[in-house]
Amino acid sequence: MIYSRDYSWETDGRGWRRHRELQPFRGMVHDIRRRLPYYWSDIQDGFNYKTFSATIRMYFVNILPALAFQLDMNHNTGGFYGINEALFSSALAALVFSLLSAQPLTIVGITGLISLFNYTIYNIIKLHDVSLYPAFMVWVGIWSAITHWMTAIFNWCDYMRYVTDYSSNTFALYVGTIYIIKGVQELAIGFYDEKHTNGFLGVVVAILYSLTVYYLEKMRTTILFRAAARDFLSDYAYPIATVFWVGFSHFPGIIGRTHIECIPITKSWYPTVPRPYVWLVEFWHLPVKWIFVALPIGMLVTLLFYYDHNLSSLTAQEKKYPLKKPAGFHWDFFLLGWTTMIAAFIGLPYPNGLVPQAPVHTDALTTYEDQVEEIRTNDGEIIVQKKIVAKHVTEQRVSHLLMGLLVIGTMSRPLLVMLGTIPRALLSGVFFVVGWGSIEGNGIINNLIYLITEERFIQPSNPLLTIQKRRILLFVSFQLFTWAASVAISQTIAAIGFPVIVTALIPFRLHSIPKIFSRRELEILDDLTATNEVVLASLGGKPVMKEAREDLREASSETSESEPRKRESGHESESGTPRDEAGLRNRGIGGHDGEKSTVDV
Amino acid sequence: MIYSRDYSWETDGRGWRRHRELQPFRGMVHDIRRRLPYYWSDIQDGFNYKTFSATIRMYFVNILPALAFQLDMNHNTGGFYGINEALFSSALAALVFSLLSAQPLTIVGITGLISLFNYTIYNIIKLHDVSLYPAFMVWVGIWSAITHWMTAIFNWCDYMRYVTDYSSNTFALYVGTIYIIKGVQELAIGFYDEKHTNGFLGVVVAILYSLTVYYLEKMRTTILFRAAARDFLSDYAYPIATVFWVGFSHFPGIIGRTHIECIPITKSWYPTVPRPYVWLVEFWHLPVKWIFVALPIGMLVTLLFYYDHNLSSLTAQEKKYPLKKPAGFHWDFFLLGWTTMIAAFIGLPYPNGLVPQAPVHTDALTTYEDQVEEIRTNDGEIIVQKKIVAKHVTEQRVSHLLMGLLVIGTMSRPLLVMLGTIPRALLSGVFFVVGWGSIEGNGIINNLIYLITEERFIQPSNPLLTIQKRRILLFVSFQLFTWAASVAISQTIAAIGFPVIVTALIPFRLHSIPKIFSRRELEILDDLTATNEVVLASLGGKPVMKEAREDLREASSETSESEPRKRESGHESESGTPRDEAGLRNRGIGGHDGEKSTVDV
Repeated sequence: MIYSRDYSWETDGRGWRRHRELQPFRGMVHDIRRRLPYYWSDIQDGFNYKTFSATIRMYFVNILPALAFQLDMNHNTGGFYGINEALFSSALAALVFSLLSAQPLTIVGITGLISLFNYTIYNIIKLHDVSLYPAFMVWVGIWSAITHWMTAIFNWCDYMRYVTDYSSNTFALYVGTIYIIKGVQELAIGFYDEKHTNGFLGVVVAILYSLTVYYLEKMRTTILFRAAARDFLSDYAYPIATVFWVGFSHFPGIIGRTHIECIPITKSWYPTVPRPYVWLVEFWHLPVKWIFVALPIGMLVTLLFYYDHNLSSLTAQEKKYPLKKPAGFHWDFFLLGWTTMIAAFIGLPYPNGLVPQAPVHTDALTTYEDQVEEIRTNDGEIIVQKKIVAKHVTEQRVSHLLMGLLVIGTMSRPLLVMLGTIPRALLSGVFFVVGWGSIEGNGIINNLIYLITEERFIQPSNPLLTIQKRRILLFVSFQLFTWAASVAISQTIAAIGFPVIVTALIPFRLHSIPKIFSRRELEILDDLTATNEVVLASLGGKPVMKEAREDLREASSETSESEPRKRESGHESESGTPRDEAGLRNRGIGGHDGEKSTVDV
Repeated sequence: MIYSRDYSWETDGRGWRRHRELQPFRGMVHDIRRRLPYYWSDIQDGFNYKTFSATIRMYFVNILPALAFQLDMNHNTGGFYGINEALFSSALAALVFSLLSAQPLTIVGITGLISLFNYTIYNIIKLHDVSLYPAFMVWVGIWSAITHWMTAIFNWCDYMRYVTDYSSNTFALYVGTIYIIKGVQELAIGFYDEKHTNGFLGVVVAILYSLTVYYLEKMRTTILFRAAARDFLSDYAYPIATVFWVGFSHFPGIIGRTHIECIPITKSWYPTVPRPYVWLVEFWHLPVKWIFVALPIGMLVTLLFYYDHNLSSLTAQEKKYPLKKPAGFHWDFFLLGWTTMIAAFIGLPYPNGLVPQAPVHTDALTTYEDQVEEIRTNDGEIIVQKKIVAKHVTEQRVSHLLMGLLVIGTMSRPLLVMLGTIPRALLSGVFFVVGWGSIEGNGIINNLIYLITEERFIQPSNPLLTIQKRRILLFVSFQLFTWAASVAISQTIAAIGFPVIVTALIPFRLHSIPKIFSRRELEILDDLTATNEVVLASLGGKPVMKEAREDLREASSETSESEPRKRESGHESESGTPRDEAGLRNRGIGGHDGEKSTVDV
């Protein structure tokens, strides 16, 4: 059985070997050893209908926001980045990651954050000499690539296993908010130069387009038609809505005569701003002083990608998806260094993992089964309910690859012209839908809804009922505060420091939150974002959170004296609780908790 | 106890007395004798919070569509009818019906159908001599008033008790469709004279306004906040949304500079087209020939109102509302003759019962209680559900009267100016919400949804499961055919014949449908629109439908010989089935069914 191989290469840590950062390349090597045996099946499994529908869905979900971000960047970087750059960067990322990555489910492309980053840097450079911008961006990329590789070599991605819903929900809410804001800004651009008719028509198209996609995607959850028809409408929500509303916005008559503003296109295959060496940027002309200025900024890019890319990879492999093939965070981050480097040299925005879109790809590849759940009441009546069960994920590389080829195809003249018929306002609609996808159903929003729900109508089985409401409010407030701070900072030139805030969420959750909330509260309010063993193996296995560890220590110090000593001695303990099973490795971050190490898986 | 009085004045029919049409004035007299004792309580019960919220809600729901229809009429009748006519007519109807009617719950005002009627007549007159129009409309009203009175005197409204969901759902779906069409047409007017910016802004405002009202009204059905807060948001959905979006559409900046087109207002208190005798139309100048042409048209108006007004009254007193005070269809139809006459003389559109709005008034006056329903499953788990129970309807005249006074107030200059700040597009939003209210949840739509629902997810307790799907489809097809024919004819000059189609639905349901469907099928697919005894008493009590009668006859001819003879002799039978209880009186309509009469209540 291809799926029954062993994922756990790293269960033999003793002495200094416990410290994975002291074993360079170990994570990457194990990632390859784990995933490579599946490479052939990654291709074989791709000859599947699910692959086809996922390719189409991801093409739309990936490319339309990328174009929108690109327009935004174009507007804010003096026209340096354009459509061709966005397409090229997306295609490059898709080819590299579909063919070489350990986890081809994680879609890599242009994010809103890199676009924010790029024009924040532009604004900073503009204060000095704007002509330095292209070469400066190459050096930012070079430094960033180097720090990417270091991160991968020293297994620093391990730290991502501590990511819980606390930070991933906060980040998802932040990204969703940014998407909605971008959608509104994009609509506002439609009104520039007194083109009010265009602006208002754009608002109409954006609203109707997003409602169409939203309700088509919701079809799967209804009980209308047969399961196959529901799946069809949901799978092709984007193409259906796009074809319809693009047609609508060119309809002869008042709408046609409005000549709605479409996506601007330039010469195929060439950079937006012509350069002497076609795509290559003349990075060697940058003054040495500036090369060093690029270092800290490159590190910030790495920090951003560290969080953003790995989180999108984690959410693409979230606990709700029944994944069978192993992940490889270290190897993928190493690859990301390469795409950053290549993108830098040829003047593209650096691609990385797409937070709201990553789980969409896995979702598109998941075979859901609609089951009938019969509830027998005490009165002898039967109530039926629909239950959607994720049966299987078609884990393969083909959909990612095909999507990449489609993007390359889009760079050719005929398809580029077709792209030029899409109204800009439609991109706002994409922002609304994709952004809303991160907001609706987000744990933070669910907790807020719980707080305002009338108590007598809450299901008695809801575990939140065992916690005081003000404790839930406090927990949510921490998240909302971070969210609000992130949104606010994104609107300023300080946006460049934003990765520090989001990355700081991980140690904050790990060390400070358990001081405020009890273990029981955290077990109900929070959970690891990914719990699947095949996913966490790459990061050193499932961690034990601080609050659980302390409880364990208390419990053991009460019952036995030898137990804590044995645990503190750093040797392997055979007698963990089930929760302890997956192991924990303390790597010195926050040594104040006094515990050195426990179980090693 | 004021509510315990006897409603059944007419249980003593014997011989010729069985024929109520042979007892002129009997219906009206009994209506008064039944309702008059409640007059004082109708005022006392009005000093209630529910009255206040219902007044506000009805003011918006009544006046905004009336204005929109008026604009439509204004556009299509060469400017003869204007805002002042709409307000005056609504106020006249509200004052007369709130103070004098037997059923003050039924809101009377300007409907889309009368506006359709008025401009269809205008188009016909225009073929000859358009200057005759005002005087001609007076004569139509005079003839119509006379036929109204005849209808009331000879108790012809009795026939309305046979109205079942079959025809009332078809009509509601038709009216809902017309409302939506009007909403779209109204938005299209925003684009006239190349005012495209205004047009598109109008579309935006209309969509957002209708979504706001729709979701605010839905608040009541959620489990968010406390019951009082939910009720508040739902009760004041219209005022909240109207104030917000009127403000929005005048917001300084791009929107403000667009100067969205608002409701056109004219001089307060005066007719839109100045006339020699202020409001009075010079009807005495009409050539005698035309007076007689007005007769058949007046009769068509009466037929329209016969169906439209009585149906709106029936739906305002539908089975789901726990009404305690008696209705009075004959007396109210007599009053309607008077308002038609008065409106005709002073050149107003004739008011009558508003189909989509009538149940809104009762709904606004109903005190709902949110109850927790606990379902205990066999596994010992408890699932809680919210159940909304209609506890009590505040039946009184005060809300109707206050609404009328508000409408009069609106005719004064300051309020009229305020009205002039409402964008025309907002009226489209009102059309969408009110029209959608007749479509969503309509029995026809519910059956269609049932037909496309995947069978395994249908609740086993659903009675429709006992009928073949193609039988349900056939039943719905009859309704959809009538609906489509009505919608189509409304777009043509033949619209004037439309009342014949809808009124024909009653005998069609009574005589032809039972030949196609079995009693069991009809009992599941159809039901009387109003089943409450206090409502049906005015119409001669609850009828036995043909399909039930025939089954009864068959059953009795099988079991006993004397029973059918006794029934056919026309004497009272003591031994009805429970369904027979409410009695049946055959008044010769459709004598082909061979049965002369059965039980007399």
